Amino acid sequence: MVDIKNDERLSVLNHSCAHLLAQAVKHLYPNAKFWVGPVISEGFYYDIDLGNYTLTDEDLEKISKEMKKLAKDGKRIYREEISREEALEKFKDDPYKIDIINELPEDEVISCYTQGDFTDLCRGPHVASVKECKNFKLLKVAGAYYKGNSKNKMLQRIYGICFDNKEDLEKHLALLEEAKERDHRKIGKDLEVFMTSDLVGKGLPMYLPNGYIIWEELENYIKNKEKKLGYHHVLTPPLGSVELYKTSGHWDHYKDDMFPAMKIDDEEFVLRPMNCPHHMMIYSNKLHSYRDLPIRIGEIARDCRYEASGALKGIERARSFCQNDAHLFVTPEQIKDEFGLVVNLILEVYRELNITDYRFELSLRDPNDKVKYFQDDEMWEHAENTLRKVLTDLGIDYVEKIGEAAFYGPKLDVQVKPAVGNEYTLSTCQLDFCLPMKFNLTYVDRDGKKKTPVVLHRAVFGSLDRFIAYYLEETKGVLPLWLAPTQVNIIPVNNEYHLKYAEKVMKKLASKNIRVNLDDRDEKLSYKMRESLSHKIPYTVIIGEKEMEDKTISYRLMGHKETETLSLKEFEKKLLKQIEERR
Amino acid sequence: MVDIKNDERLSVLNHSCAHLLAQAVKHLYPNAKFWVGPVISEGFYYDIDLGNYTLTDEDLEKISKEMKKLAKDGKRIYREEISREEALEKFKDDPYKIDIINELPEDEVISCYTQGDFTDLCRGPHVASVKECKNFKLLKVAGAYYKGNSKNKMLQRIYGICFDNKEDLEKHLALLEEAKERDHRKIGKDLEVFMTSDLVGKGLPMYLPNGYIIWEELENYIKNKEKKLGYHHVLTPPLGSVELYKTSGHWDHYKDDMFPAMKIDDEEFVLRPMNCPHHMMIYSNKLHSYRDLPIRIGEIARDCRYEASGALKGIERARSFCQNDAHLFVTPEQIKDEFGLVVNLILEVYRELNITDYRFELSLRDPNDKVKYFQDDEMWEHAENTLRKVLTDLGIDYVEKIGEAAFYGPKLDVQVKPAVGNEYTLSTCQLDFCLPMKFNLTYVDRDGKKKTPVVLHRAVFGSLDRFIAYYLEETKGVLPLWLAPTQVNIIPVNNEYHLKYAEKVMKKLASKNIRVNLDDRDEKLSYKMRESLSHKIPYTVIIGEKEMEDKTISYRLMGHKETETLSLKEFEKKLLKQIEERR
Repeated sequence: MVDIKNDERLSVLNHSCAHLLAQAVKHLYPNAKFWVGPVISEGFYYDIDLGNYTLTDEDLEKISKEMKKLAKDGKRIYREEISREEALEKFKDDPYKIDIINELPEDEVISCYTQGDFTDLCRGPHVASVKECKNFKLLKVAGAYYKGNSKNKMLQRIYGICFDNKEDLEKHLALLEEAKERDHRKIGKDLEVFMTSDLVGKGLPMYLPNGYIIWEELENYIKNKEKKLGYHHVLTPPLGSVELYKTSGHWDHYKDDMFPAMKIDDEEFVLRPMNCPHHMMIYSNKLHSYRDLPIRIGEIARDCRYEASGALKGIERARSFCQNDAHLFVTPEQIKDEFGLVVNLILEVYRELNITDYRFELSLRDPNDKVKYFQDDEMWEHAENTLRKVLTDLGIDYVEKIGEAAFYGPKLDVQVKPAVGNEYTLSTCQLDFCLPMKFNLTYVDRDGKKKTPVVLHRAVFGSLDRFIAYYLEETKGVLPLWLAPTQVNIIPVNNEYHLKYAEKVMKKLASKNIRVNLDDRDEKLSYKMRESLSHKIPYTVIIGEKEMEDKTISYRLMGHKETETLSLKEFEKKLLKQIEERR
Repeated sequence: MVDIKNDERLSVLNHSCAHLLAQAVKHLYPNAKFWVGPVISEGFYYDIDLGNYTLTDEDLEKISKEMKKLAKDGKRIYREEISREEALEKFKDDPYKIDIINELPEDEVISCYTQGDFTDLCRGPHVASVKECKNFKLLKVAGAYYKGNSKNKMLQRIYGICFDNKEDLEKHLALLEEAKERDHRKIGKDLEVFMTSDLVGKGLPMYLPNGYIIWEELENYIKNKEKKLGYHHVLTPPLGSVELYKTSGHWDHYKDDMFPAMKIDDEEFVLRPMNCPHHMMIYSNKLHSYRDLPIRIGEIARDCRYEASGALKGIERARSFCQNDAHLFVTPEQIKDEFGLVVNLILEVYRELNITDYRFELSLRDPNDKVKYFQDDEMWEHAENTLRKVLTDLGIDYVEKIGEAAFYGPKLDVQVKPAVGNEYTLSTCQLDFCLPMKFNLTYVDRDGKKKTPVVLHRAVFGSLDRFIAYYLEETKGVLPLWLAPTQVNIIPVNNEYHLKYAEKVMKKLASKNIRVNLDDRDEKLSYKMRESLSHKIPYTVIIGEKEMEDKTISYRLMGHKETETLSLKEFEKKLLKQIEERR
């Protein structure tokens, strides 16, 4: 989706449209006072004081109509530079503007922009005429505290967006509609996947029973894959001593993204932002020989990070989340095989989950940067060439990003392009030469000498929470059978006659661990069918006279209009096969 | 095990034995200075300043010998009361004793006890003669900071215990030996179940791969049982806002057992000591009709509590742990059935896990106490009679504890008697009339009126961590097959000839999800067999010439001396059956 703020032309246009909005509001509400009207990624807004009045959607309609009229009039927009005294005189009736003027630096040139009967204090620049602003849409109105402080007065914030032509506007509005439909917060609420509550705490979503089923399936899915690859899973607490994070370096470099420390007796504890230090300690619990390596420590690990409340977004960005994390302890010679196994695991998971829109980014050091990067030329060259070779041998297209590596080693990121929103890193595999040293990790090599292992940090799902958010948006909530919270919904045509057979069908399927619901409410068949559809249940089974007599079931597949009939035995087999194959 | 401190006679005897110890130390180390020598549950100790000298086990032997000699001498112990001035003069060479005298209250009678050439400042009382102290044992020596402050000098603390006769002493020492062998911290270390580290943080144990296998099996075991009973599992974060715990009342009544709050922006968060409030919020996320009840919300839930560092004990008592928790939301009429289901679940789990030494305690209110208990006579009577009836109908023996109920409702506790240590509550089911009110929970009843549901808090395993500690101690680490981290250990008689067939056996078993290890190290067969035994692996499989030729395997079962031979197919079947049946 277009980022208005980062597009020079659209940024000017949207800012001008904010003035048009203010002019229209002034016409309709002569007592309105104006705070600020900036451009944002999503368009623009204007914060307006309308006394105690709260704007309704109907008001937005009226304002929109007035804006269209003004745009049609097509007044020219002209700039004027004035002295501070003139500015204070000109805006003397608007305390907000006076506030802005008083906060401007001494040497700032103060400018106004005027269109017809409306003048606003503004740095500019603006388009030449309000005519250019005609392809706009007012999106919503919300309360916003003056200066963002809840102790101040609440103003009315009107959001809008503007384009150069009707087509672009309509295309964008369609995308917005699509994004709204796909927003995991909406789907998550509709399908009862998770809930949030300010009383529980901002940024602390809770998985409801449906959500936990998805979670549990994904957890078992990835753990089983990892087990087959020789990973050992562990369970470590969601906090550690501050000393632990001083040892790892997080306390010095990552503190701003962490929760504050908690003092207990003489010790300080902190919620962990990542679990590397815990896993380093697990490695260090034993002596290791080169024969023991690679050692692969995995964990579905609870972490907590500080996120500004404005950045929080459902389960996509929360303050408490779970990483599908693992740390692989290897000798330098094992980097190649181990990295290859990780890449193959990622590819296998993407194939099975039908994730197709992704690309690989290989972040390397800038060899000329002698400050940022851990100094060991031989190690870097060996590692970078190894990663390149693995990717090339696997026939993988990738982009090299010079100077984008972490200071501790090169890394591979897998970027996915979601149905809406921006590309993001879903999976990662990072080499680390430094952390093992900080924890004095060693293994005894073939030559009897103690050496430091290399660590591969890797995550396939990144955070399980974020993956579920992504997957709900990708699938619009129509999950593959194995992940669907309810896999089969059984509806008897008439409870009086068909309930008993329906119960038999339910019990049979449930005994095979198929997640089945029997809708025996006294509601109309058509109503129940509609609801089954809106809950995105893969199979809706209808049990009537014919099914009862023939010992069959009839089903409708989510997204299909036809009804199929099968024997109960065949149906059961079909379901189990589909679950097994994760289709 | 006997609690010396709580036994009047043994308390006096052990205190006298501490003096005998001090006398012997003074004989052997004339410069020794003495701090305090109190009685504790485990016997007695004395904190002694020996300059920079650190006592060894050989020194303990010598001291012990000297004590025996003195005891045989049989000097009488006599008491003398002296003035403060006399006391300061008498102990002028021992700064620790001077410190004690100076800290005694003004009006305190100061007394000394003398035996032969040794006098100690002491309140008493003591036994009549040192002869009575002859049945003692010095247990260990450890460093202990003066006044427990790590900035002070480290003293030598000698621990001992004393009984009236040899038989009691020997019985106790055998028990101690048994307790040491069974201590889950020892077994947990030997079998690599978990580790602790002060750098990770005191009271924050970490499950190693073996421990997580046990954990995962138990988690799946109990979740599957709960699912069959219609529980819905959820996943909620390990912290909440302080407001949440103010609403529940924990902030007012339970704060001392909680971690300190963490301030983020305008909000305060706190690690949760229990998950009831989160589950109340999940119930409140939807409107409920009486037809939806009972609603059963379960979670393997991470909690954190403040525990004094002295109270910490491996995974038995830690600061971070996981509850096998559930909250059942029911109408008053459903208490009976629901409570019955919980009791039956507990009995079933105990039967399957072979837990036999337990008893039921029913805690009821004291009807005369009009202050402590939530006031609703009808509700209490209905609830208490219901619980009684369920237990009686199930033929369960139970003890009633009047006045032991929580203020919010009656409860059932299941007390288990571990192999060592004191009885404790393993499972619990508590009725709660209050919490649902605090969260304004309601359901619409048959009559259309909004009513408050009753909540049953219940836990079968209590905390999974504590249960694992208990189970390791009960079984001495010899876990039933389904819980054993490694189920089968395969040892080829000779790697050169038998490794290939051994690998085939391993792959076959692993393909059936049997946890199997192949010991292909170049070590002697007998060494590998001994190690397999010490790792408490249920089945040790030996692969030699005969097995390879006959396509069989020979195995030795943990704790047995005979070797059995089976076809690979039969062996696999046997294992799967045993795992399935949880034997």
